[in-house]
Amino acid sequence: MARIHLITGGARSGKSALAEAATLSLGNHAYYIATAQAFDDEMRARISIHRARRTEVWKTHEAPFELAATLRATDDAPRLVDCLTLWLSNLILAERDWEAETRELLALLPVLVHPVVFVSNEVGMGIVPENGLARAFRDAAGLLNQRIAAAADEVTLAVAGLPLKVK
Amino acid sequence: MARIHLITGGARSGKSALAEAATLSLGNHAYYIATAQAFDDEMRARISIHRARRTEVWKTHEAPFELAATLRATDDAPRLVDCLTLWLSNLILAERDWEAETRELLALLPVLVHPVVFVSNEVGMGIVPENGLARAFRDAAGLLNQRIAAAADEVTLAVAGLPLKVK
Amino acid sequence: MARIHLITGGARSGKSALAEAATLSLGNHAYYIATAQAFDDEMRARISIHRARRTEVWKTHEAPFELAATLRATDDAPRLVDCLTLWLSNLILAERDWEAETRELLALLPVLVHPVVFVSNEVGMGIVPENGLARAFRDAAGLLNQRIAAAADEVTLAVAGLPLKVK
Repeated sequence: MARIHLITGGARSGKSALAEAATLSLGNHAYYIATAQAFDDEMRARISIHRARRTEVWKTHEAPFELAATLRATDDAPRLVDCLTLWLSNLILAERDWEAETRELLALLPVLVHPVVFVSNEVGMGIVPENGLARAFRDAAGLLNQRIAAAADEVTLAVAGLPLKVK
Repeated sequence: MARIHLITGGARSGKSALAEAATLSLGNHAYYIATAQAFDDEMRARISIHRARRTEVWKTHEAPFELAATLRATDDAPRLVDCLTLWLSNLILAERDWEAETRELLALLPVLVHPVVFVSNEVGMGIVPENGLARAFRDAAGLLNQRIAAAADEVTLAVAGLPLKVK
Repeated sequence: MARIHLITGGARSGKSALAEAATLSLGNHAYYIATAQAFDDEMRARISIHRARRTEVWKTHEAPFELAATLRATDDAPRLVDCLTLWLSNLILAERDWEAETRELLALLPVLVHPVVFVSNEVGMGIVPENGLARAFRDAAGLLNQRIAAAADEVTLAVAGLPLKVK
């Protein structure tokens, strides 16, 4: 059964770098499953910074929506999924059923053979957003984190680039 | 002297579920002290989700304001207070003196016999709010958390539904 | 080589009080290096609250910009820098090169003899800000925290006034 590791943290808390190191400790090469969609220049810049850090040991797959199918198709090496919160955001913006997609993902995890390191964002520790959509999103993001964390073997909170062991 | 446990965390971090389990580990039945006021449909939906999880082992008291009096009146079994941050919000919106009410609460804690599990929210880890009232609220919420934590025997940070021991 | 301690946390998480105690545990007297600029009444009120807590064991230096120079000039006793996030904000608002200033600071740390306790803010655990400048600021604040944390001997997350050891 695949080992599942969730690395969560705030913006620029060093989650991705910790997740890359954790994934590469599990194998000589790995899949980088990117959920980002480059809608605008800011996002394109973020993606290219992340890409610049990755070397030829990584094989990149883009999966803005089809996360379960991509995990099924890459089950011959460790995988890094960066990140769950963007995947959730993609699903919600496309008006897809994120709860059904999450159930499919959770049902798949015990069937996988090779490890998965998930990155996600902590978005619920600020003041309650005035915007109703933002409130609904942070509720969904928190629930998704809880569900993946419950299924994970290991959970880490990234703080200032350092790992804090939660599970 | 009553054992005091503070469980804090972000929105949808699983605080309430952890607090319910912690409270029921202390006795066969317990009081659920709800501070929420159902102003609108969103809040009514949240309250009914929380209520659906609670079984007949819980006896519910509503205490949007009179928290100290309610704790005094229920000192024959473990209590769960969900949550301190809403109680603070109620006091501030009603223009009551939250610092005086907090002092009354803190003075009561050492006198209580049965345990109290407090739930509160982390609201200070986002960007500084532009709104002055929001800034004042997050300052008050942070100070209230500090004061209860100082008086508590145990403090837990909920992260993705998991408990991180702070004290 | 100077011992470096970073204490980070949300608004009103008790970071400054923990940092003051940590600094005074290192010597009988210490420098308080304040980066705050009193632009308005709210900020003046915050500064005077912080000042009221400090006693004659502290010698205060104001360093809204020249942090490296101030650390160099005070290297005969422990220093508390409160806080890095305001220093960053000052640099960005003045359109100075915060990355260059940070490199200068990081190059200085191994040369210092007496300990430094840095306070900084966690600002990245809320919902993504709509304001582009706020997003850029929280990215910069997160990166600064990572860089100081990597150079630090000890890193603490303040939660409800209590220290959570990260490094």
